[in-house]
Amino acid sequence: MPKIKENLRQKIVFGIPKGSLQGNSLLFLRQAGFNIYVVPRVCQPKIDDSQINCFLLRAQEIPKYVSLGKLDAGIAATDWILEQKAKVIEVCDLDFAKKTVGRGPKWVLAVPQTSPIKSVKDLQGKVVASEIVNVTNAYLQRKGVKAKVEFSWGASEAKAPLFADAVVDITETGESLRANNLRILDTVLEVKTKLIASPLAWQNLWKREKIETMAMLIYGRVRGHQMSNIMAHTTSANLPKILAVAKKYDQASVKKIAGTDYYDISFRCQALQARDLLPALKMAGAHGIVQSPAFRLG
Amino acid sequence: MPKIKENLRQKIVFGIPKGSLQGNSLLFLRQAGFNIYVVPRVCQPKIDDSQINCFLLRAQEIPKYVSLGKLDAGIAATDWILEQKAKVIEVCDLDFAKKTVGRGPKWVLAVPQTSPIKSVKDLQGKVVASEIVNVTNAYLQRKGVKAKVEFSWGASEAKAPLFADAVVDITETGESLRANNLRILDTVLEVKTKLIASPLAWQNLWKREKIETMAMLIYGRVRGHQMSNIMAHTTSANLPKILAVAKKYDQASVKKIAGTDYYDISFRCQALQARDLLPALKMAGAHGIVQSPAFRLG
Repeated sequence: MPKIKENLRQKIVFGIPKGSLQGNSLLFLRQAGFNIYVVPRVCQPKIDDSQINCFLLRAQEIPKYVSLGKLDAGIAATDWILEQKAKVIEVCDLDFAKKTVGRGPKWVLAVPQTSPIKSVKDLQGKVVASEIVNVTNAYLQRKGVKAKVEFSWGASEAKAPLFADAVVDITETGESLRANNLRILDTVLEVKTKLIASPLAWQNLWKREKIETMAMLIYGRVRGHQMSNIMAHTTSANLPKILAVAKKYDQASVKKIAGTDYYDISFRCQALQARDLLPALKMAGAHGIVQSPAFRLG
Repeated sequence: MPKIKENLRQKIVFGIPKGSLQGNSLLFLRQAGFNIYVVPRVCQPKIDDSQINCFLLRAQEIPKYVSLGKLDAGIAATDWILEQKAKVIEVCDLDFAKKTVGRGPKWVLAVPQTSPIKSVKDLQGKVVASEIVNVTNAYLQRKGVKAKVEFSWGASEAKAPLFADAVVDITETGESLRANNLRILDTVLEVKTKLIASPLAWQNLWKREKIETMAMLIYGRVRGHQMSNIMAHTTSANLPKILAVAKKYDQASVKKIAGTDYYDISFRCQALQARDLLPALKMAGAHGIVQSPAFRLG
């Protein structure tokens, strides 16, 4: 069976971003079922899947290496995919960022609180410091503004007003901007974390299937992370009111408990919705309410 | 007195490198007598000298801003001064790096342990990944080797052999290179930390004097950090032998202790030399030996 032998030798070369996305990337890979660990200082994490070779690389570089086929797949965010103009297959959203799951960071245009600049239109002829020069230039062009975009190596929040009139900086919680007395003028780009694949790897059926399997396992866990299962009991009298509440979230499954007037209902909701949902169920007459975390959605 | 009024309004805009040099930069500024502290996330550290405005900026950017006069002065390392081809005044060496004082890190050319590449000459036509592209190109040119230097955003130790044939990476202790099974072929650049000043600021006498004062205070402390004072007692019989030992380190000061046959000798040595010096003094007949740290040299 030559096909199997060949497959045994095949490997996915997979890029994991070093730095801000590293923690959640490793966490969700682990929770997706891959036993992966990083020896301090070593850039090739160990993983208990002989078909995967992992590399820790700077987030800026993964899209380029994936587009060139030097990596078969990897985890990357849309900012650097766009900035590098990398031609990659976006296999699925991963929905996690450095600190949060479910909402991404964004690149914003900001000026000092005391700046006379009130909107992007006031930047005509001014200097904007940005780590993502191509994305910033495209944004300014869309707005019909001609400004000089200076490449920033980082620490951009220090730059206005002394080194630039405005900055384009990434923010997840807004804390750094507030701490440095910066005022947000506009959102330049909302960032999504993606599992991306190389167009070359995508043409290789074995690799494509392996990447899709990885994506399914990781994405299922990320979605599971955000979901809760809700179970509750009710009498037949209250059932319509309770179903009316549940309907806003999901199609509930209803089972009559044998030999009683009780019904068992179960459905799913976003974990974040539970704090509104649970009191509403209670008000509608539900009892024995149980919220349990979903682990993975398939 | 218009001159004084004017001076009161003058300020030095001073760049402190964020990242690997940040810790020692703040430490030596503090020990030089400046009460400086960083509010978390805030890029403008507070300093108890109203004539200094500090900014935390990426190490890569300080030479450029100093050469343009946007910063009057700052702490920078020679790698990024050279890489940015920044025209700056090198006021003094600072002799500290990320982890060590007295010896700097270096950029080295390295390949995987298993690579057939044995010397820089074998890199003809190959790909070298490096964060300091200009410095690396100049090095290869000196060696008469034509290779493609690809810009690396960092994490270069992951790159050979899959993404490049060789890497130019910075190392202070060699740990990362060893952990990633890399073999050093050659030193590309030895790095020194410097206090640098803008040619523009240097023409302003008030600024120049202020920068020179800062340099004297910081450099004095860095040198003091590495020095020890040695004091010892001896009889007149042993004095010649002891002076012969001391002479290797410094010109000793000798005082006769009134009404006795004892002499008190004192001199300075490098703190690192003390472990050889002290036993030698003992062997030569000294007693009451005291080594005390120097704090600052003026």
